[in-house]
Amino acid sequence: MKILIMNGPNLNRLGRREPGIYGSTTMEDCLAGLRKAFPEVEIDYFQSNHEGALIDRLQQAADDGLAGVVLNAGAYTHTSVALLDAIRSVDFPVVEVHISNVFAREDFRSHSIISPACEGLIAGFGMGGYKLAVQALTESARD
Amino acid sequence: MKILIMNGPNLNRLGRREPGIYGSTTMEDCLAGLRKAFPEVEIDYFQSNHEGALIDRLQQAADDGLAGVVLNAGAYTHTSVALLDAIRSVDFPVVEVHISNVFAREDFRSHSIISPACEGLIAGFGMGGYKLAVQALTESARD
Amino acid sequence: MKILIMNGPNLNRLGRREPGIYGSTTMEDCLAGLRKAFPEVEIDYFQSNHEGALIDRLQQAADDGLAGVVLNAGAYTHTSVALLDAIRSVDFPVVEVHISNVFAREDFRSHSIISPACEGLIAGFGMGGYKLAVQALTESARD
Amino acid sequence: MKILIMNGPNLNRLGRREPGIYGSTTMEDCLAGLRKAFPEVEIDYFQSNHEGALIDRLQQAADDGLAGVVLNAGAYTHTSVALLDAIRSVDFPVVEVHISNVFAREDFRSHSIISPACEGLIAGFGMGGYKLAVQALTESARD
Amino acid sequence: MKILIMNGPNLNRLGRREPGIYGSTTMEDCLAGLRKAFPEVEIDYFQSNHEGALIDRLQQAADDGLAGVVLNAGAYTHTSVALLDAIRSVDFPVVEVHISNVFAREDFRSHSIISPACEGLIAGFGMGGYKLAVQALTESARD
Amino acid sequence: MKILIMNGPNLNRLGRREPGIYGSTTMEDCLAGLRKAFPEVEIDYFQSNHEGALIDRLQQAADDGLAGVVLNAGAYTHTSVALLDAIRSVDFPVVEVHISNVFAREDFRSHSIISPACEGLIAGFGMGGYKLAVQALTESARD
Amino acid sequence: MKILIMNGPNLNRLGRREPGIYGSTTMEDCLAGLRKAFPEVEIDYFQSNHEGALIDRLQQAADDGLAGVVLNAGAYTHTSVALLDAIRSVDFPVVEVHISNVFAREDFRSHSIISPACEGLIAGFGMGGYKLAVQALTESARD
Amino acid sequence: MKILIMNGPNLNRLGRREPGIYGSTTMEDCLAGLRKAFPEVEIDYFQSNHEGALIDRLQQAADDGLAGVVLNAGAYTHTSVALLDAIRSVDFPVVEVHISNVFAREDFRSHSIISPACEGLIAGFGMGGYKLAVQALTESARD
Amino acid sequence: MKILIMNGPNLNRLGRREPGIYGSTTMEDCLAGLRKAFPEVEIDYFQSNHEGALIDRLQQAADDGLAGVVLNAGAYTHTSVALLDAIRSVDFPVVEVHISNVFAREDFRSHSIISPACEGLIAGFGMGGYKLAVQALTESARD
Amino acid sequence: MKILIMNGPNLNRLGRREPGIYGSTTMEDCLAGLRKAFPEVEIDYFQSNHEGALIDRLQQAADDGLAGVVLNAGAYTHTSVALLDAIRSVDFPVVEVHISNVFAREDFRSHSIISPACEGLIAGFGMGGYKLAVQALTESARD
Amino acid sequence: MKILIMNGPNLNRLGRREPGIYGSTTMEDCLAGLRKAFPEVEIDYFQSNHEGALIDRLQQAADDGLAGVVLNAGAYTHTSVALLDAIRSVDFPVVEVHISNVFAREDFRSHSIISPACEGLIAGFGMGGYKLAVQALTESARD
Amino acid sequence: MKILIMNGPNLNRLGRREPGIYGSTTMEDCLAGLRKAFPEVEIDYFQSNHEGALIDRLQQAADDGLAGVVLNAGAYTHTSVALLDAIRSVDFPVVEVHISNVFAREDFRSHSIISPACEGLIAGFGMGGYKLAVQALTESARD
Repeated sequence: MKILIMNGPNLNRLGRREPGIYGSTTMEDCLAGLRKAFPEVEIDYFQSNHEGALIDRLQQAADDGLAGVVLNAGAYTHTSVALLDAIRSVDFPVVEVHISNVFAREDFRSHSIISPACEGLIAGFGMGGYKLAVQALTESARD
Repeated sequence: MKILIMNGPNLNRLGRREPGIYGSTTMEDCLAGLRKAFPEVEIDYFQSNHEGALIDRLQQAADDGLAGVVLNAGAYTHTSVALLDAIRSVDFPVVEVHISNVFAREDFRSHSIISPACEGLIAGFGMGGYKLAVQALTESARD
Repeated sequence: MKILIMNGPNLNRLGRREPGIYGSTTMEDCLAGLRKAFPEVEIDYFQSNHEGALIDRLQQAADDGLAGVVLNAGAYTHTSVALLDAIRSVDFPVVEVHISNVFAREDFRSHSIISPACEGLIAGFGMGGYKLAVQALTESARD
Repeated sequence: MKILIMNGPNLNRLGRREPGIYGSTTMEDCLAGLRKAFPEVEIDYFQSNHEGALIDRLQQAADDGLAGVVLNAGAYTHTSVALLDAIRSVDFPVVEVHISNVFAREDFRSHSIISPACEGLIAGFGMGGYKLAVQALTESARD
Repeated sequence: MKILIMNGPNLNRLGRREPGIYGSTTMEDCLAGLRKAFPEVEIDYFQSNHEGALIDRLQQAADDGLAGVVLNAGAYTHTSVALLDAIRSVDFPVVEVHISNVFAREDFRSHSIISPACEGLIAGFGMGGYKLAVQALTESARD
Repeated sequence: MKILIMNGPNLNRLGRREPGIYGSTTMEDCLAGLRKAFPEVEIDYFQSNHEGALIDRLQQAADDGLAGVVLNAGAYTHTSVALLDAIRSVDFPVVEVHISNVFAREDFRSHSIISPACEGLIAGFGMGGYKLAVQALTESARD
Repeated sequence: MKILIMNGPNLNRLGRREPGIYGSTTMEDCLAGLRKAFPEVEIDYFQSNHEGALIDRLQQAADDGLAGVVLNAGAYTHTSVALLDAIRSVDFPVVEVHISNVFAREDFRSHSIISPACEGLIAGFGMGGYKLAVQALTESARD
Repeated sequence: MKILIMNGPNLNRLGRREPGIYGSTTMEDCLAGLRKAFPEVEIDYFQSNHEGALIDRLQQAADDGLAGVVLNAGAYTHTSVALLDAIRSVDFPVVEVHISNVFAREDFRSHSIISPACEGLIAGFGMGGYKLAVQALTESARD
Repeated sequence: MKILIMNGPNLNRLGRREPGIYGSTTMEDCLAGLRKAFPEVEIDYFQSNHEGALIDRLQQAADDGLAGVVLNAGAYTHTSVALLDAIRSVDFPVVEVHISNVFAREDFRSHSIISPACEGLIAGFGMGGYKLAVQALTESARD
Repeated sequence: MKILIMNGPNLNRLGRREPGIYGSTTMEDCLAGLRKAFPEVEIDYFQSNHEGALIDRLQQAADDGLAGVVLNAGAYTHTSVALLDAIRSVDFPVVEVHISNVFAREDFRSHSIISPACEGLIAGFGMGGYKLAVQALTESARD
Repeated sequence: MKILIMNGPNLNRLGRREPGIYGSTTMEDCLAGLRKAFPEVEIDYFQSNHEGALIDRLQQAADDGLAGVVLNAGAYTHTSVALLDAIRSVDFPVVEVHISNVFAREDFRSHSIISPACEGLIAGFGMGGYKLAVQALTESARD
Repeated sequence: MKILIMNGPNLNRLGRREPGIYGSTTMEDCLAGLRKAFPEVEIDYFQSNHEGALIDRLQQAADDGLAGVVLNAGAYTHTSVALLDAIRSVDFPVVEVHISNVFAREDFRSHSIISPACEGLIAGFGMGGYKLAVQALTESARD
């Protein structure tokens, strides 16, 4: 089983950027933890600050036989109709993840454009959210 | 470790009500599954159609030494400031769960009044969301 | 044929409360009139000031073989998503009744949250609205 | 006792237009049914696609000694302040009827401009709504 | 010098309709007064309940060598973009008149769609507003 | 193959009205050009300033075996729910045309009420838009 | 002279809940202080987390010969039309109290649904607000 | 008969400020013309850039036996609730005047806060609006 | 102990202006009553129709060793950000008072710009509100 | 004559993505058809999922002597002010095309940010819209 | 070269008021610094808490041969249409300055009514903003 | 001291694009002028039409020991939450610059998403704004 984890803009700086909000764990630590927790799952990772690059990667994933994608679209969550369309155009499930509780921050962060196209949403559990998302995908793949 | 699962209005009819949206698993099946999956956790359950009863129960839980509450407030999610205040007044973490992807339904369901007071949010994974929520609570209790 | 008439908050004071708006007929008079006008129909009555109690009663009605419910939800008409969900979860038709012409009063009274789940709406005919509603239910039951 | 039934735009095509929403009964059938059900009432009928013609007719009715008007203003319900003013300028009661449950359709159909000037509103009971409206008028005339 | 006075929907009932708001002077009295006050002006009059007829008449007036039009568009003031376009398409000035102070009534009456295309606006002076409007037109014609 | 071209309010003055926006070609020139460009198509034409007359004509067209209608509803585009309903009630395709780029003008012109019921929309190409619309209808009739 | 003090949801936890906002005085202390300060007034107290129970109690008070009610409706202040209606239906004055300055907190707390039905409003003086309210009631009873 | 003409902020620069919008006539010319046209009327004049000074003057006018006030409140038209209250507190009629057609300019100029308290409104006739306003006041004084 | 009572625009006419809303007690009576009720407090009074003068006075008060200010800002309550800033810039508590229940009047009166900077708010108790406010200030000074 | 056809995000998947909305013709088929229909026109094609790449290409086109651009900006239609600016900065006409009738889909798709800068708009004719757009450009180039 | 620096309400307390936001430099220090930095410029200064006084001063400046005005309108920035009109009525450039980054504070501070009439805006640089503004004026005067 | 100047979309065409708004100076001229005016500052320059590339460059700058960034984000100013997050994630100050007075143009240009994260804002001074921004950075670096 193959799963792709995609991170959007500024998430390449996790662990360094605003630790008060995002914690100090880096994405590398997080991926290592995931691979250990889910040894039977092949976990790919992609990050970009480019909206277009995230769409390119998602489209290419459509030919990869993925069980699903875990997507933290960062700020594009709140502005990208193009990403919404891209998620609608693929066949595998996409799980939306946010590290912080976006609903407890600025108003504009409480509206996600992409949610209607996603399988589900997990927010507020820090880096632990990625683990819950992978688990959700593996369980729904099993059903 | 003790966890309370609270369900709001109409969720006593899970498995019977609008199966196209909510599936056909009953809450009893779900609880049985949870207790099997988390044998080390004592799982309490409370459901009410009364906003006030949910608040009463949450306040009473404050004296129970809980590790946390998993709360699917149903329709009160979108209308109850009183529930928001109740969550703010307790010391243990509350995880918000929705069975369906509320963000892909009517507009008024995409706004949760209680989210800002909750630890995190899990939505769209069917009855599996309760399992993810319990797991999230047990892991954060462990940290 | 069995029909349940449900009244929401403050409607236990019909005939006493703001007679300029609601008239001076009491609900008891009204029920007596209805039973006389529709001798072939068994007419139940339930009133509560509690949103949760109205939902409890509606759910319980689902097991009663009713031809339908006549519902004057009072102020909950304008605030209760939980009641909307409860109406959606039952199989019999629910007819929404308002004694006054709610559309000619304060702005917030011109929006009904529960209408989309109801069979139809009757407003502005005073206590006579209950009679029109029972008639509507009996006729649609006949078809 | 004389009652006028007025239908607004596109309602001359009832029974032919969008039967999924409006049913397949024609207005002629409906009128025949009404005259049979209320033999003591003289029932006039007027339909026009012209906002101005509906106002003309309503004004002229002011000289006719009517017990009231049953008005299904169709789409003008949602756009015509002129019709609202016309209703306000006559002395007899006007009952607003909608065949479908307008509150369960597009958002703009849930707002009626003319309601504040009408005696009452009946919506969602198909062609049966006209019968309920005539009955409401005859009963209020009797009081 | 020729001036056309145009009245929109329901204004054929001036003097009879809602005298609390519009007074009890009829339009005939008003016109007689105007012709006496402005003997040098040829005063035409047109009233219709039909938006289209008002536009037809305004267009036809474009061939009449008018000094201007005094327009009380009644309810179409608040809803008719077509009338706005018609006013924009003629070369003579159009003065907007309202009998009552529309800004002191319902909210929707405080917005005029046609004002931006009119020379000026006179409101709140009862039937006297027509006289002020004719005077404004004759004075601006003189300049 | 028969096509009806319908023009709404003030479009009988094309070539004379606001040439800065609408150009100086008259509708007669335009129709002549269309009949020459599409000799195999019978092209009917109807213009009215009356919302109701446009609906009457559209309904009557339903019995004419038309391949489709090209509709420039003028200002009614932005205000007429009745026209929307009329378009929904006919079986042939209706193509919406605007001479100017309505999206580059006043805000209220950028919202069309009738678009959701139309096959498609062509705007901003001057009188050439009618030709594109007829071509679109003939091509879709051929498929 | 008899006065009822009613507290809404979560106010049973005064002195324990969010002391930064609500202070650390308990309601018991507060009532003791009031009874000492106003020995001539019989002071009843009622608290509930249930919207319906607050309405029940207010209605029952209508038969008690009260000089008035001091109401801190807590979160129901911002959501309960039913409470507004209940206040309107009783004959004695109701004074609205808030412990904190609700206008300096979240936006949704600056709008009170029940204010239009209350005699007056006192906010921001901590537990001292109850004393000011009782004094206001006793003084207005004296006039 | 005594009438006061009051001008608000920046109107002391009439004839010098933005002549494209306000023309080149000065207020002195205008007053001279008015006194000539209405020899039987004593015309006072007051201008201030201070909201408070306008209110002071209006209050003082209440003791002057005025037939009415002609008020061009300039920009305070759109922002001053205090002026609205002042107008409400005096017994004589106040006629609102605007030199330009405020409804054809920026959006915020199409809303007048003070209109609901004024007798009527005259806008768009340049300096001629003052003359129409004085005439309106003299005529209504005569009735 | 020294307290300053400040009244905003039009409040110099209390007892004369709209007695239906504000009663017939004058401010002089009110001040006399206050000085009698609180003999130990030195009570200053200032009224102005000028926003700027209210700010000047408030700033000057900062050098007066006041226990606090009772401020009825009248209409500036709803429009003055400058007053909000002035209140924020002083060190003593400011209590906001309204004579009428502003929340039961026009919509724009239910929003106070200055509330967030005030200690608390008292509204709806007529002239008695000033007394409650002085009492609130003296009690909080004592603590 | 040279024309550039530009497609925005996700339109590289035409024929594969949501065929219910976009049909099953691929862009390659479409381009072949266009080149056959317009043999005298040199047709370039560019697609990108990157907002920036679309702007780069449009700027570069400014040096290419194009007769115009046919632009289907996909989801960027609804979010990209940068694309609007880019279109404004070039000298050749840009025709906006949408395959589906965007006005009959989600609300956010009925607003185009780029329309005000485009020559015209064609929507709802499937892949046929590209042909109409090329024709519109060739005809306007001829004039 | 002569430049006038104008400060609005509460800015006479710079250095004393909310130093967390505005710093502790006084305006006197600031002016001294400016005069030293721009010895060739004659720098006038005016401060008032009165909206009308600011307008009076700006108008009077029109006769002073100024190179421009540096205006920190304080709270009037967000409420004064009268100031906007005054700026429009003078011929010299006005540069808007804010000490704090108003866009990072309360929502209502992110909208400036006067900006459209100003030459430019400088915000967020503390007292240094005045220096940047003077420099901008001197440089644009040189061009 | 090192400063980076970053320009967003379409700003590579400064001097060529819409000179009526942006003037005819090119960015090359501007940079030459800046380097001459600030010889002690090393000035880097980066322009891209890609939102992602601007973020990449800003992140990379975090490792460059910059005194600050001057950012003219062009159209992304109004749409990019991702850029806001990027600015928040770096330690050096970012000064926002706009060449034109964005507050005097289309409505959507008067809202900047990125302002709350920036040190300050300079707008409306043409290319001179870059010079003011560099000066602001150098001065604040000196403090």
